[in-house]
Amino acid sequence: TDGVKEDLRTRFDLPEEARDYILRSIEYNVPHGKLNRGLTVVQFARDFFAAKGQTASDEVIFQASVLGWCIEYLQAFFLVADDIMDASITRRGQPCFYKLPEIGLKAVNDSIVLEALLYEILRKHFRNAQCYQDIFDLFHEITFTTSIGQLLDLTSQMEQGDVDLNTFTEANLVRIYKYKTAYYTFYLPVALGMHLCGIKDAELFSTAKDICIDMGVLFQSQDDYIDCFGDPKTTGKIGTDIEDNKCTWLVVEALKVASPSEKAILEDNYGRPDEAKVAVVKQLYVSLQLPAKFEAHESEYHTRLVSKIDAVEGQMPTGTYHFLLKKIFKRSS
Amino acid sequence: TDGVKEDLRTRFDLPEEARDYILRSIEYNVPHGKLNRGLTVVQFARDFFAAKGQTASDEVIFQASVLGWCIEYLQAFFLVADDIMDASITRRGQPCFYKLPEIGLKAVNDSIVLEALLYEILRKHFRNAQCYQDIFDLFHEITFTTSIGQLLDLTSQMEQGDVDLNTFTEANLVRIYKYKTAYYTFYLPVALGMHLCGIKDAELFSTAKDICIDMGVLFQSQDDYIDCFGDPKTTGKIGTDIEDNKCTWLVVEALKVASPSEKAILEDNYGRPDEAKVAVVKQLYVSLQLPAKFEAHESEYHTRLVSKIDAVEGQMPTGTYHFLLKKIFKRSS
Ligand SMILES: [Mg+2]
Ligand SMILES: [Mg+2]
Ligand SMILES: [Mg+2]
Ligand SMILES: [Mg+2]
Ligand SMILES: [Mg+2]
Ligand SMILES: [Mg+2]
Repeated sequence: TDGVKEDLRTRFDLPEEARDYILRSIEYNVPHGKLNRGLTVVQFARDFFAAKGQTASDEVIFQASVLGWCIEYLQAFFLVADDIMDASITRRGQPCFYKLPEIGLKAVNDSIVLEALLYEILRKHFRNAQCYQDIFDLFHEITFTTSIGQLLDLTSQMEQGDVDLNTFTEANLVRIYKYKTAYYTFYLPVALGMHLCGIKDAELFSTAKDICIDMGVLFQSQDDYIDCFGDPKTTGKIGTDIEDNKCTWLVVEALKVASPSEKAILEDNYGRPDEAKVAVVKQLYVSLQLPAKFEAHESEYHTRLVSKIDAVEGQMPTGTYHFLLKKIFKRSS
Repeated sequence: TDGVKEDLRTRFDLPEEARDYILRSIEYNVPHGKLNRGLTVVQFARDFFAAKGQTASDEVIFQASVLGWCIEYLQAFFLVADDIMDASITRRGQPCFYKLPEIGLKAVNDSIVLEALLYEILRKHFRNAQCYQDIFDLFHEITFTTSIGQLLDLTSQMEQGDVDLNTFTEANLVRIYKYKTAYYTFYLPVALGMHLCGIKDAELFSTAKDICIDMGVLFQSQDDYIDCFGDPKTTGKIGTDIEDNKCTWLVVEALKVASPSEKAILEDNYGRPDEAKVAVVKQLYVSLQLPAKFEAHESEYHTRLVSKIDAVEGQMPTGTYHFLLKKIFKRSS
């Protein structure tokens, strides 16, 4: 991405302040994540060549890193916009970009600039690669599905106090998980690795998608669980899903087993910015044994994923899937 | 674009409400412009084949229309976001999308969805066309330049009351015009027509860009003039550039010829939400003879454009340029 900075200096006729403004937005928003998504692309390339008894060339590793950075730009684009819509305060231990007094709603355009830079980077490094068109189409497919996921998430969240428990169904939950997170967090890096390594078989992409979506669903249900039962010392943040009236794994499971009187308790206490009411909901979750249910759910997904991964052994390198699964299974933050 | 609606119904596993939500956003934001940009693509295709003594086939006209709609999606994407950032109230005679009480800041994501739909449409209709990659790259180039134009515009506008006349230079003005409007309004439709007709010569694209950027600069200076001196009955809107502290053709020209005491008048009255001060600025513009200067400026651009267009006669069809020039020259709204 140093190339981007160089290009901003030389290729465009920009006044210095505009260039500095963009560079600052990049520095602020792109590099501070865990970079797992980016590392996954590199991991896939290594596994692919290792499976053939070869070593991935420096060029391939470099290209994989570029694609990894492109994912980070894509994520920055979505996160800057997401924080505005969610009226969030902090992100990755610093104020959200739009919260900086000199930025404000200009951040809407800054998120658009970050997305546009991703395609500038792609074009620069892959314009003549055989996989250019496929990679391009993939980024667009994922942008589309992620924006649909955001839409589902935004429209499923009623205003606070305006609770409609009927919308908290497993089908809605899985759909939001899949579109909002699973595609770009799990499928995108794996599929980019596959395109980079020249894989063309559409069947293999379907298989990869199936495994990655399952991982994404597991990942997001963990996110929900941690939001409520995680240790803020480990996670670095205090969850607010209950007061925010979110459709989560916990509330969906609770509704599956709750008696009419327990449903009434949820009805009266969910989605209110009131500590006492939040505590009532958490208490109900505990008495409905959701922590034990969650453990069972996590193991069930793990077992299923391991067998899905075993089933594709030989068709494509599976090291990346194990790498991802190890990162997420029983995670506490 | 009926195809989009059909695809939203069939291709994606979306709940009905999400689908209806997207369809409503499309209806509200895409079709209500003047469609000039879209018509320009069709015009170019007709001119191109007419120049060869042929008639453009129904298929080419259909493809040109699809590209025209793609420009309207791109514009909708930018306008929805722009209205949020500018805190605008109305657009095309209806409330801005984000101003609808049930939409609000969700409109940030709706603008992203509109952009994503544009690439869905492109992929659907052009996936196998010889010009697919070129069209794709062009849309990205234009998205990038337009987002940079927005950035230049947003960062050039100081807070009200915080007036720095030194930033109101011709170089800054032309740069904003070029990036924010000229590329997507004039160059994009012409260049799409060129790609659709199979033109490959990079020289011709440079020539087209040069002419189109000039037109865009003329168009935007007219916009500034009309904002101040236009008839609200004709334009349908009341200009606020002076109170908004905008870098406009008028203020740049005024500063070129103003005496120190006239500069002081500007310094004291520009960029304030105060009718009396706005009137003082307008009075100064009149006494500096900006209306006459504007007429001269418009004629000068017209003459220059006509000679640039004449110079490319024979290399590419020029009917589209004359079509555009006729639409904008001496326009009053
Ligand atoms: Mg958020
Ligand atoms: Mg959100
Ligand atoms: Mg969460
Ligand atoms: Mg505006
Ligand atoms: Mg604006
Ligand atoms: Mg204007």
